[in-house]
Amino acid sequence: MPKYVYGFAEGSRDMKDLLGGKGANLAEMVGLGLPVPPGFTITTEACRSYLQRGAEPPELAEQVQAHLADLEKAMGKRLGHPTDPLLVSVRSGARFSMPGMMETVLNVGLTDRSVAGLARAAADERFAWDSYRRLVQMFGRTVLGIDGALFDEALERAKAERHTTNDLDLDAADLRAVVDAFKAIVRAESGREFPQDPREQLTLAVRAVFDSWNAPRAVSYRRQERIPGGLGTAVNVVAMVFGNLGPDSGTGVAFTRDPATGRPGVYGDYLANAQGEDVVAGVRNTRPLTELEQLDRASYRRLLEIMRILERHYRDLCDIEFTIERGTLWILQTRVGKRTAAAAFVVACQLVDEGLIDLDEALRRVSGDQLGQLMFPRFDAEAPKRLLTVGMNASPGAATGVVVFDSAAAVTRARSGQGVILVRRETNPDDLDGMIAAKGVLTSRGGRTSHAAVVARGMGRTCVCGAEELVVDERARRLLAPGGVEVAEGEVLSIDGSTGEVFLGEVPVVDSPVVEYFQGSIDPAGPQADELVRAVHRLIGHADARRRLQVRANADTGQDAERARRFGAQGIGLCRSEHLFLGERRELVERLVLAETDADRAAALAEMLPVQRAEVIELFRAMDGLPVTIRLLDPPLHEFLPDLTELAVRVGIAEERGEVADRDVALLAAVRRLHESNPMFGLRGVRLGIVLPGLFGMQVRAIAQAAAHVRADGVEVRAEIMVPLVGAVQELQAAVDEATAVLAEEGRAAGVPLDALIGTMIELPRAALTAGTIAEAAQFFSFGTNDLTQTTWGFSRDDVEGSFFATYLECGVFAVSPFESLDAEGVGRLIRIAVAEGRRTRADLKLGVCGEHGGDPASVHFFHQAGLDYVSCSPFRIPIARLEAGRAAVLERLESSR
Amino acid sequence: MPKYVYGFAEGSRDMKDLLGGKGANLAEMVGLGLPVPPGFTITTEACRSYLQRGAEPPELAEQVQAHLADLEKAMGKRLGHPTDPLLVSVRSGARFSMPGMMETVLNVGLTDRSVAGLARAAADERFAWDSYRRLVQMFGRTVLGIDGALFDEALERAKAERHTTNDLDLDAADLRAVVDAFKAIVRAESGREFPQDPREQLTLAVRAVFDSWNAPRAVSYRRQERIPGGLGTAVNVVAMVFGNLGPDSGTGVAFTRDPATGRPGVYGDYLANAQGEDVVAGVRNTRPLTELEQLDRASYRRLLEIMRILERHYRDLCDIEFTIERGTLWILQTRVGKRTAAAAFVVACQLVDEGLIDLDEALRRVSGDQLGQLMFPRFDAEAPKRLLTVGMNASPGAATGVVVFDSAAAVTRARSGQGVILVRRETNPDDLDGMIAAKGVLTSRGGRTSHAAVVARGMGRTCVCGAEELVVDERARRLLAPGGVEVAEGEVLSIDGSTGEVFLGEVPVVDSPVVEYFQGSIDPAGPQADELVRAVHRLIGHADARRRLQVRANADTGQDAERARRFGAQGIGLCRSEHLFLGERRELVERLVLAETDADRAAALAEMLPVQRAEVIELFRAMDGLPVTIRLLDPPLHEFLPDLTELAVRVGIAEERGEVADRDVALLAAVRRLHESNPMFGLRGVRLGIVLPGLFGMQVRAIAQAAAHVRADGVEVRAEIMVPLVGAVQELQAAVDEATAVLAEEGRAAGVPLDALIGTMIELPRAALTAGTIAEAAQFFSFGTNDLTQTTWGFSRDDVEGSFFATYLECGVFAVSPFESLDAEGVGRLIRIAVAEGRRTRADLKLGVCGEHGGDPASVHFFHQAGLDYVSCSPFRIPIARLEAGRAAVLERLESSR
Repeated sequence: MPKYVYGFAEGSRDMKDLLGGKGANLAEMVGLGLPVPPGFTITTEACRSYLQRGAEPPELAEQVQAHLADLEKAMGKRLGHPTDPLLVSVRSGARFSMPGMMETVLNVGLTDRSVAGLARAAADERFAWDSYRRLVQMFGRTVLGIDGALFDEALERAKAERHTTNDLDLDAADLRAVVDAFKAIVRAESGREFPQDPREQLTLAVRAVFDSWNAPRAVSYRRQERIPGGLGTAVNVVAMVFGNLGPDSGTGVAFTRDPATGRPGVYGDYLANAQGEDVVAGVRNTRPLTELEQLDRASYRRLLEIMRILERHYRDLCDIEFTIERGTLWILQTRVGKRTAAAAFVVACQLVDEGLIDLDEALRRVSGDQLGQLMFPRFDAEAPKRLLTVGMNASPGAATGVVVFDSAAAVTRARSGQGVILVRRETNPDDLDGMIAAKGVLTSRGGRTSHAAVVARGMGRTCVCGAEELVVDERARRLLAPGGVEVAEGEVLSIDGSTGEVFLGEVPVVDSPVVEYFQGSIDPAGPQADELVRAVHRLIGHADARRRLQVRANADTGQDAERARRFGAQGIGLCRSEHLFLGERRELVERLVLAETDADRAAALAEMLPVQRAEVIELFRAMDGLPVTIRLLDPPLHEFLPDLTELAVRVGIAEERGEVADRDVALLAAVRRLHESNPMFGLRGVRLGIVLPGLFGMQVRAIAQAAAHVRADGVEVRAEIMVPLVGAVQELQAAVDEATAVLAEEGRAAGVPLDALIGTMIELPRAALTAGTIAEAAQFFSFGTNDLTQTTWGFSRDDVEGSFFATYLECGVFAVSPFESLDAEGVGRLIRIAVAEGRRTRADLKLGVCGEHGGDPASVHFFHQAGLDYVSCSPFRIPIARLEAGRAAVLERLESSR
Repeated sequence: MPKYVYGFAEGSRDMKDLLGGKGANLAEMVGLGLPVPPGFTITTEACRSYLQRGAEPPELAEQVQAHLADLEKAMGKRLGHPTDPLLVSVRSGARFSMPGMMETVLNVGLTDRSVAGLARAAADERFAWDSYRRLVQMFGRTVLGIDGALFDEALERAKAERHTTNDLDLDAADLRAVVDAFKAIVRAESGREFPQDPREQLTLAVRAVFDSWNAPRAVSYRRQERIPGGLGTAVNVVAMVFGNLGPDSGTGVAFTRDPATGRPGVYGDYLANAQGEDVVAGVRNTRPLTELEQLDRASYRRLLEIMRILERHYRDLCDIEFTIERGTLWILQTRVGKRTAAAAFVVACQLVDEGLIDLDEALRRVSGDQLGQLMFPRFDAEAPKRLLTVGMNASPGAATGVVVFDSAAAVTRARSGQGVILVRRETNPDDLDGMIAAKGVLTSRGGRTSHAAVVARGMGRTCVCGAEELVVDERARRLLAPGGVEVAEGEVLSIDGSTGEVFLGEVPVVDSPVVEYFQGSIDPAGPQADELVRAVHRLIGHADARRRLQVRANADTGQDAERARRFGAQGIGLCRSEHLFLGERRELVERLVLAETDADRAAALAEMLPVQRAEVIELFRAMDGLPVTIRLLDPPLHEFLPDLTELAVRVGIAEERGEVADRDVALLAAVRRLHESNPMFGLRGVRLGIVLPGLFGMQVRAIAQAAAHVRADGVEVRAEIMVPLVGAVQELQAAVDEATAVLAEEGRAAGVPLDALIGTMIELPRAALTAGTIAEAAQFFSFGTNDLTQTTWGFSRDDVEGSFFATYLECGVFAVSPFESLDAEGVGRLIRIAVAEGRRTRADLKLGVCGEHGGDPASVHFFHQAGLDYVSCSPFRIPIARLEAGRAAVLERLESSR
């Protein structure tokens, strides 16, 4: 026979799956000898059985009866007995905390008869009728499904009759009348009497808790928090203790350390003469917990002792719910407490110092997401602000500046020294210069994975996107906000990328000390360093010592590279060489693509070469001694060409006016000829390299010349040349042949050979599926997980995020966008195949990843498990990747030692 | 020590890998006791060793010497001996025939001294000097790399001096002078004397044959014919026999049956007093082989006897090269002869009747490609024609009709009973109606895998595409052809899709009897059936008996379905439901997509339902008792919307004129909003079904209602509902839930449940990689290999075929477009994964394929091996798929019995 009910003495904190978090911790405290009111837990298994069958498992009633009998014996009272009744609370308690999502019924056991017994036993008639009033109200709403407003209204009427708004002003007689009114509501709404059998009350209350697992708000909360829907909840049946039995009673919440800062001490709140729900409802204002020392020194001392016991036992910050009933302290609940990101780092290090945990465990207790939160500047919390609207928090940080509506204006104003907020309906690659120049980007369209969001995150720019209440009128250079507010170019806005808030005017910004530390402007051993900086320094150092994954940066310029190195980059994993030829220099590639003769083509290439060389020189200098991976030109053709529709309209109108230029007609014809229906899946990457002979050769030549140039200054060069969008080894081989020939030629010219590695992106399913063959021609693989996600799923990021991703996230096709966190099942499987088969061909094949996922915590763990050598991510995410790579190594060690 | 040289007595026809085709067959004939001149074969292994090392393997010289000694002994002569010299030919002979691609040197062994010995021995001085002249010429060109034109010019000069153009008019003295001139050329061009050591001649000639394996023309021939480049060639060294020793000598070619029709008899050519190369060079006209009976009855009889021996031995049509030297017949070469498609079928059946082979073997000897060739109508070969240009033979057949330049005109003229040729620069989905109405399609742009080509092949329309010499002026409704020819709408063109030829005016067309047979208008047992029809009937019947794969049709209309059924379809594997809503009815979907209220949406759906239902009724009727798979709406949104650029230009110009319609402005805004950068990878398939609730439901309802309707007439319905573009099981589950609910509802309404299968396309890598999970929600998989190819390679068919595929095919990235023949390595691997893991989840999972590849012979073999249940292809390719499915089963049986 399955065991569906556990007394508290039978459980422990390791039984959370079966007893839920609350039940397991109650059992644990009982084991520690702490003053927990007696009770028992009905298991999650019983709940699952109920939910599946639509009825309680047949054994349940008998087991509950047996444990209830034990409870009655322990308390020396009988449930609902007329003279001195035992009352119990019936509370949900799932594996994962779902605060406020499920049901609770207190005071179960009170009836028309036992209410008198309670009055006598407590010597407090008002208390007894108030307790009964609460039971009928909760039971009616929760168990019988009656609209709670009906009870609230009846109570308000009673108070109104007494000309008061405080329920403490109602006396026993008033409350007895309220109970009558409530029972009438029950009768009218449910068609039955309020049950007078205490055992029936208990059974129905347990069933109501079971049912609340599938209440809509619980389902939607679980979906949002990614809690599996099949777990079910446990139910805790506990003898009632009362904080509302007079001034020597009360209830409170205590934290063993400050959950905001991590500082040790006594933190919490206390409310005298009250029950827990009064605290939640905010009926009266709570007092700081320290004041309890004045009210009840003995209980306060006892509580502090218990807090120490629990913290040492759980080896972590705990939060505790307690009640004092006429001078007796009862602990109703404890758990490892939630905390801010800063507190997480500080507390973890304190516990190490106190000898409670080791550094590995401390590292497990912080996360890359928390570190990320600590790295962004914030608006001064104290400063006055005028909120305009709230969009999506797309790329965190706080930015203030004058509003501009196009890339050119952003560049001009930024050059003149102004801070700039670039406002667009949505961005595209043409806005790149403006995004680089701006402090922040604000768009009215597109989600967290729109171009604006992704690029801004990549370059560490603050971004609020999809602020749909704003009407952006780019032509008129103004935006319209709710309430008729109009903001013209040149006016000042402030945007908070961590919250999505948009403020009118300037709001002062506070820098992140953590970033200052990473940038080297705060010495972690010096006086400027606070406890947080010291904790971050200590834990990131431990992560570095533990991690197997190297961390490189995606960096396109020398400046990016320098910053990345300060942040701990161990090389560049991706320099997108195309960044040089977008924006202002787009014309160079346009000329190359539209060239009609070999001479035209050669001229365009000759002009591109020094541009490319100069940039690579900067990179090599910044990364002296570290590897630098340069990806040959990758993007779709159309990014280098004028927009077809715009151009066609312009030419059409010019023709209509009879003033069309021949040059424009020719350009339109060429753009039409080169137009692709699906440019992301067209002529790009290695395909362009093969079709436009000399293009890749020019780039490789620039790299070789740059290497020769900086070596003369004593710089150590470790160049890695990366061929994009390879699907077949033959494509790679063609590019490798061209590169090898150029390298040899330039090596002879320089008198020193350049031993560059040549490798490929793995970003097409076919590349992963034929990795064993491709590795014959590649010295390294770098997984381009953005494109690999696009092709594995068959959707283009540009198109789908704004269209159906919202629906997909809502209806649970994805738990998270596969562009944010790697789809381990599909895309990840291809990566595992490529790793295994690539290494089988070439044991020393270097393996890395350079998609957005390289800086995503969950994905970093996947890459560690998959056995890659490095991840590469944007400079600002390097500390996050370092931390998570360390955590992945520690977790793996933990798993394997189990 | 490796054995690099085999005497003919040591080999056999099974040793083609080592001895090449020619060497193996010579050895085989020696084994049969046929009169083959003695000789030996240097192996392909020796060639490969030479090509790798850049030098002959050290053991080779000694082994050649030993076999040469045997040969000298057998012939009683010594190589190049002054008195009666042995002469040898040195010929290439690779595993696969590469006619004319590699080198031959005849008469090796002749020197300034031995030429006199030959003259004496042959009693013919002119013959000896002519032979020497030939040696110096061939050796100079082939071995020493001298420009052959220099020798040709010297010979021409000698003939001019004699005032003749026939080399037979040169006497011994003249030829001696020619030899001197040739030797002078050798000296001047190569800086060395023509070698007078016969052994050195032999060594150098063998090396030249080795080298010719990697000559550019051989490399490009192999690439074209998909012959692996690493095989190398064997070299045959054979004692010379001479067909040019007078009127009782000669040379010829014989076929054991007519290679054009397969008819038994004596076919071939003979040239008296000549050597083989004279036949090739066409110096004199050959005579029919039957005339040899008059010239040399004994040799003729002997040849006929040998032909019979060879045919019975090889159990196939053979071709034979022979030489008669002064009345003695020598067989120089034999091989299984090439033949036409018709002869292949006829000969295979004849050999079965003659007891030489069984039906399995006969089936192996024909191919789907051959059957395909036999199914298309052709232009009457005898009719006069005026060739306009030659484009690409994109979809075979012969079509004549009046030229039109747009879809509407095609429909109008076709309705009035005219045959129509639709001429476009290129086609797109809007041209579908026109393509359906037309007899043939001609485009000036796009390759064999362009939209025009693919769609035309799919519907069995004749198509010539990429006829780049034509300038198609769609506005002016005319085309300009080379030579200033102008063709206006309404004039007549004839296009040959099998050759790519475009003719001006009408050319009479001859129907294919094979198609008439498949359509049931020729009874294979009746008097109308010729030998070809009987052979096709017999072999396709055997294929049907052997094959494990079922063959279904891709058919969108009842008419298609009926035809498909006559062609042997065992169901419909793919009905593209969108075909109903493209072309004229596009507006229905446009309204649905642009609907702004639920009422608008419901109204659009309500209008679509009866259209869908009517079509499905026709399909169910046509396929009574057979499965019908209907794919829910799949294509990218933009196919249902106006073209953005066109619309923007129209609105822009209208605005400029001040006469813009509000409706157009609103439409433009909507189209801009829905515009996708990469529509093929955007909102389509199941994504659209989830985003537009009710769409899939409407389609399923139409299917259910259609089923109920036809069942009332006694039709047996086997419906299969297919969800397109699924990447995650959650997407499929959502569609399955909607479909199941609608089916249940309609089942209740009809009073009879409809047991439709619900399954999914597997056309995204992620679907294949997670097939084990997806199979939980799918009752069948159908591999959409077109899309799967697009996503696995990461290129969009619309874009890449016209842009870089030509380059890729040229430089060998592909041997064949992966859209034509399945990429077994990449795409095929995903299919194998999905088959294995899908069946692991659901043992009775039905597996099929419905991409273009379903009708491609090589791909059919892959699908058989992968263990699919069926292939589905366009109606015209059904017989091809049936035949190849049978061949695949026979080949598998053969492999497993080995």
